[in-house]
Amino acid sequence: MSILSSLFNGQLIASDKPVLHADDRGFHYGDGIFETMLLQHGRVRFLEDHWQRMKLGCDRLNILQPERVLMDHELSMLTRDRAAGVIKFILSRGRSERGYRPPAKAIPSRLWQLFPEPGQSAHDGITVRWCNTRLSRNPGLAGIKHCNRLEQVMALAEWQDTNITEGLMLDTEGELISATMNNVFLVVEETLVTPNLRYSGIQGVMRKKVLQFADQLAIPTEQRAVRAEEVIAAQEVFLTNSIRGIQPVIRLDQQNWSVGPLTTLLMQTLESAS
Amino acid sequence: MSILSSLFNGQLIASDKPVLHADDRGFHYGDGIFETMLLQHGRVRFLEDHWQRMKLGCDRLNILQPERVLMDHELSMLTRDRAAGVIKFILSRGRSERGYRPPAKAIPSRLWQLFPEPGQSAHDGITVRWCNTRLSRNPGLAGIKHCNRLEQVMALAEWQDTNITEGLMLDTEGELISATMNNVFLVVEETLVTPNLRYSGIQGVMRKKVLQFADQLAIPTEQRAVRAEEVIAAQEVFLTNSIRGIQPVIRLDQQNWSVGPLTTLLMQTLESAS
Repeated sequence: MSILSSLFNGQLIASDKPVLHADDRGFHYGDGIFETMLLQHGRVRFLEDHWQRMKLGCDRLNILQPERVLMDHELSMLTRDRAAGVIKFILSRGRSERGYRPPAKAIPSRLWQLFPEPGQSAHDGITVRWCNTRLSRNPGLAGIKHCNRLEQVMALAEWQDTNITEGLMLDTEGELISATMNNVFLVVEETLVTPNLRYSGIQGVMRKKVLQFADQLAIPTEQRAVRAEEVIAAQEVFLTNSIRGIQPVIRLDQQNWSVGPLTTLLMQTLESAS
Repeated sequence: MSILSSLFNGQLIASDKPVLHADDRGFHYGDGIFETMLLQHGRVRFLEDHWQRMKLGCDRLNILQPERVLMDHELSMLTRDRAAGVIKFILSRGRSERGYRPPAKAIPSRLWQLFPEPGQSAHDGITVRWCNTRLSRNPGLAGIKHCNRLEQVMALAEWQDTNITEGLMLDTEGELISATMNNVFLVVEETLVTPNLRYSGIQGVMRKKVLQFADQLAIPTEQRAVRAEEVIAAQEVFLTNSIRGIQPVIRLDQQNWSVGPLTTLLMQTLESAS
């Protein structure tokens, strides 16, 4: 996964050159937000939705959102003639003097990175496990894709077995929230159920699209608190994120599933919409 | 608070030069720990305790702790002949490819910063307020001084009134944990009470010293869950951190305190121990 191209505050950068100043608040406090996007057929899939979520994060943390015209310009500088890849964008609050208090007029730092396109998503299903690491609850930070990600880092350090693609995470109260890099959906009695993310988790772009697809397909949906035990009892389980799309879960510990009809229908719908 | 000197991975750096690589996990995830220390009389106050807490953080996050001899060498390069100042040290997990999973053999990034000595601490007392921002609970992250600090950033954005020095923070369950940059102590019926920090907060070096002083002085102490209402009912309230030492709280909303005898005794004890 070597980096193809990188842009910092509007300048193309060489990967072996340092670009960040030592007083960047992203480095000191994780004081920033990020987006991970799929570049395919020469454009970013669901760009508007990524832009909206970024705005949610900027509003919540009071970080100045860059002008859209600037973002579009930098995106085209980053990708040039490339048609496919993975894009990561980080927006930190910027530089400041020592101390937690955010300066009134910080100038955000913008880092764009372009990586090679991902391998084929596992449409025939993935194996997942439970993580021991719990997600903390904080309504003020829930939903946004901020850069305080030690919980995910610790969760992913729990296993090295490459046969296990993902780990399901509970919050500190024992509710199911998501996987480490994906949101999670269950099919429970013909209804599509996903955690409501009031206290933890990230309002995923692919999660949002899947809920929209379900509405279009007249599939009933519920965003609610989900207990861990419900996973095992579910008819179908699948994970979603912006890069991998929809991935069916076919194994969790001793439990096996086949790829279910609702999951298949949603994968087809995503394929048509992409 | 302009920076006096700065060192990155063993090299003295100019403050206007970028030093961090774009793939540093400190910037992407807040994947690191830090220490803030007081340099006085030509040495770091309670250096051994800072070193021990750093070890706690490295062990918990599985970050390679640098050799002590290297740290001492860099500390002397940073401070040179200076006798007083504030030192911030950040240890990030280092650089990696894209993704939360920590690499097995990351080489940590070391940033040292030296700032001018702080102004006089407020031995005659400070005014504090309540923060609306809550601290989340996570036993896996509680106690260590990690770089996921958005909760503190958001709390300090709540007020600009310079007459208010600090803000008290509750966790999401309503228990008192700390102030934004300080730990908190109450005197309740001749007993020194401080939150036990099982689920949130930072095991402060000055908090530890104050508990040791209390033991030496045969003052009874309790580390336990503390309800918000107990603050108002307390005979004395004071805050602690490594830079400011012990600061009595003399005002919180409509409540006033004078600087109490136990707080005074502990301030004198710290003065002798420094």
